[in-house]
Amino acid sequence: MSRKPLQVVGIGNAIVDIMTRCDDVFLAARDLPKGIMRLIDAAEADRLYAAMGPAVEISGGSAANTCAGLASFGAEAGFIGRVADDQLGSIFGHDIRAIGVAYDTAPSTDGAPTAKCLILVTPDGERTMNTFLGASVELGPQDLDRDMIRNAEITYLEGYLFDPPEAKAAFHEAVELAGAAGNKVALSLSDPFCVERHRAAFRSLIQSGVDLLFANEDEILALYEVSDFEEAVAAVRQETTLAALTRGGAGSLVVTPESVTEIAAVPVDTVVDTTGAGDLYAAGFLYGVAMHKDHAACGRLASLAAAEVISHIGARPEALLEDLARAEGLIATA
Amino acid sequence: MSRKPLQVVGIGNAIVDIMTRCDDVFLAARDLPKGIMRLIDAAEADRLYAAMGPAVEISGGSAANTCAGLASFGAEAGFIGRVADDQLGSIFGHDIRAIGVAYDTAPSTDGAPTAKCLILVTPDGERTMNTFLGASVELGPQDLDRDMIRNAEITYLEGYLFDPPEAKAAFHEAVELAGAAGNKVALSLSDPFCVERHRAAFRSLIQSGVDLLFANEDEILALYEVSDFEEAVAAVRQETTLAALTRGGAGSLVVTPESVTEIAAVPVDTVVDTTGAGDLYAAGFLYGVAMHKDHAACGRLASLAAAEVISHIGARPEALLEDLARAEGLIATA
Repeated sequence: MSRKPLQVVGIGNAIVDIMTRCDDVFLAARDLPKGIMRLIDAAEADRLYAAMGPAVEISGGSAANTCAGLASFGAEAGFIGRVADDQLGSIFGHDIRAIGVAYDTAPSTDGAPTAKCLILVTPDGERTMNTFLGASVELGPQDLDRDMIRNAEITYLEGYLFDPPEAKAAFHEAVELAGAAGNKVALSLSDPFCVERHRAAFRSLIQSGVDLLFANEDEILALYEVSDFEEAVAAVRQETTLAALTRGGAGSLVVTPESVTEIAAVPVDTVVDTTGAGDLYAAGFLYGVAMHKDHAACGRLASLAAAEVISHIGARPEALLEDLARAEGLIATA
Repeated sequence: MSRKPLQVVGIGNAIVDIMTRCDDVFLAARDLPKGIMRLIDAAEADRLYAAMGPAVEISGGSAANTCAGLASFGAEAGFIGRVADDQLGSIFGHDIRAIGVAYDTAPSTDGAPTAKCLILVTPDGERTMNTFLGASVELGPQDLDRDMIRNAEITYLEGYLFDPPEAKAAFHEAVELAGAAGNKVALSLSDPFCVERHRAAFRSLIQSGVDLLFANEDEILALYEVSDFEEAVAAVRQETTLAALTRGGAGSLVVTPESVTEIAAVPVDTVVDTTGAGDLYAAGFLYGVAMHKDHAACGRLASLAAAEVISHIGARPEALLEDLARAEGLIATA
């Protein structure tokens, strides 16, 4: 099906998640706004970690989770992101390779340790993320595997990369490389606060170099500084060729300048942990695009992957998404 | 209820578990006997890890899991075991303290990294463990917190400690310290292959210094080199004052020279992962002993804790065992 060796290359922060459960009182006592991602420094990471309950370590990172999802669908995916030469870095590298993603960004041998995200999961399944970017900050243009980018039909970028300045430079170069090779560029806005921090840069990039935009409701409202979703939808249809806008349990909307396709969410018995919901939605959608599916089918693959990941702890699929998609008739039986 | 500041001090290997799912073919292809623990060196750990699927890191270690279970029941517990001054060591230290166990063994600053156990969980819920002892080997008499041992009603030792020679020396000194302070000593045999490796030493210790012995069926058969469980029960009743013998789903037997008490297993909907079943059985039983419960009640607390831990991934309780025990009427409502 594919004209290039890779369907997708993801570029993003290489992070190990440190996940624990907590109640709403724990968040309130620390002024942690539920459901968002905030950046913390090493000292604050230490303080918060000391206050957290027993935790579980699971590889994460937004685009990395998406690449893991793509591999689970059976797609050929690569990932570019920087860890340090330490134990958490080894864990990150092992896990992403073990799920079948090509990954060979060299670990940094000095400087900050591997990035970690302290994730607090409340009883409602919502996750509140506190990220120490560590070695991810050191990702720069020198780390780009240019052949990998040229050889991937789609270059997928997480908005979080706009936070570390060197990574942002790598991001821009990757967009140029992909464009020059005739490949598509996809972007996830990642987080409403991330959008607030980098709104102008996102707007400019979306207008010039992005073929496929992922955003949730809060992010798209933040991008266009509006309070009404319909208004945001109208705005994004003027600026992008294709956007997938997620609304949690209310499903998602796939829009182009010419069309609007509504996608229902796949129901889940119990939402255990929403970490990775957006990342896996993107995985399913990108897989559909790479397989030349129509928008409705892309959306259904996306919703299926998101439903799998919110039904358990951790931001990467436990089930083989390829099997789930086949059982649902979304891909042909082998 | 307690005449000493701590109910239990556990001494054992300080290990982080690296857990993944695999099928039986994966075990067979590598000659890994299902359900047992084997020791591996750093090179073999690297080889096996490279072959394993994406994993989750969760703090483990047999006696450490038992101490975590005791804290979850609301008991005062301490732990002695050695990690290295590295990221996995920090994770181990955080998790055991976060669940409420006193832990301040100084991490080793040179030598091997923190111990890790590569755990392969098959679809039947059985776990096959491959342990790289790392810094745990460096635990020695110099690491014993003698006050902690004197101040604990029960000193609990995992049989695995017989593998690293220095730890074995610490083990013997701890038994003497506990005895001299008028405290009880409890021992878990840990694993049938561990019993094979150290049978004579275990026999001698059981006859001289152990007040409470934990063993599963394979371990007690290995200890007495018999093939019949009844024969093993008869043998252990001649050598110990109190033994709790577990038989998985078939329940357990609490025996003394004078009595035999049968304990039913607490039924579990789906056995997800048996890692920690014996450790948590010991936690419940020790909690009962510390609370001066009779053997039947100790056994029910033990079975309740074991049932909780096999219903999810990981060797430490996710639910608060104190709440579960209260709901079952096994401890008084506050």
